[in-house]
Amino acid sequence: MPASDAPVTGASRPGGAVPPGPARPSRLDPEIAARLRRTPDGLVAAVVRQHDSGEVLMVAWMDDEALHRTLTTGRATYWSRSRQEYWVKGATSGHHQYVRSVALDCDGDALLVSVDQVGAACHTGHRTCFFTELPVSSPEATS
Amino acid sequence: MPASDAPVTGASRPGGAVPPGPARPSRLDPEIAARLRRTPDGLVAAVVRQHDSGEVLMVAWMDDEALHRTLTTGRATYWSRSRQEYWVKGATSGHHQYVRSVALDCDGDALLVSVDQVGAACHTGHRTCFFTELPVSSPEATS
Repeated sequence: MPASDAPVTGASRPGGAVPPGPARPSRLDPEIAARLRRTPDGLVAAVVRQHDSGEVLMVAWMDDEALHRTLTTGRATYWSRSRQEYWVKGATSGHHQYVRSVALDCDGDALLVSVDQVGAACHTGHRTCFFTELPVSSPEATS
Repeated sequence: MPASDAPVTGASRPGGAVPPGPARPSRLDPEIAARLRRTPDGLVAAVVRQHDSGEVLMVAWMDDEALHRTLTTGRATYWSRSRQEYWVKGATSGHHQYVRSVALDCDGDALLVSVDQVGAACHTGHRTCFFTELPVSSPEATS
């Protein structure tokens, strides 16, 4: 038993559920695909940050093919959960994301995409999508 | 039609699918809960960063109740997809995350949690979970 409070990757899952495979056909390198641990709809979370300032700009979703396109075109490409289609960031807005590097996390369910962001990352016009603060009301919040 | 390439929130969804509601009972403020746009298994992605350096440490998952506990205890609390249970970061490892602020993104499917991280964020012992670089092989990668 690992001396850790992190989720156990690859451990037996309650109910014996098998982690979801790719949702759609993809040209992604099979070695990378084998490391992904997807949501039930076949996606991993992509955290996007400005490569030099480190500012977290947005979170979007990638399936295997979106990751493949991101890695091979250098243009951040996502899967739209609402439209059920691929979208290249900036294709219609002009707010391009030029990819500098991509890192996979230890358990394969998230990517950290470092980009050079042109203009606003958020479709609302904000530089970052994280502009809504939620109230933290604990005595430990400032400890 | 919005002049944006971002996913359209609240738009009609192919097949008329309704966004998933909470997966489990929760004490989360209903006004906040109403803003969440969850994965099919009732989760939102929580991006965790060190509050002062801005370093992205990890991504974990929260359901409504995990978010409630995070906001009201000041201790980062997640839902483990593999174990199907709540976990308080640091409870067994000692690598506590003291929450400084929490922000919700524009479309309600991701949180940015700024913490004071004690020790390593990753269960492997790395400071951050994003230590596996993937190859970016495009001519635009350095543009």
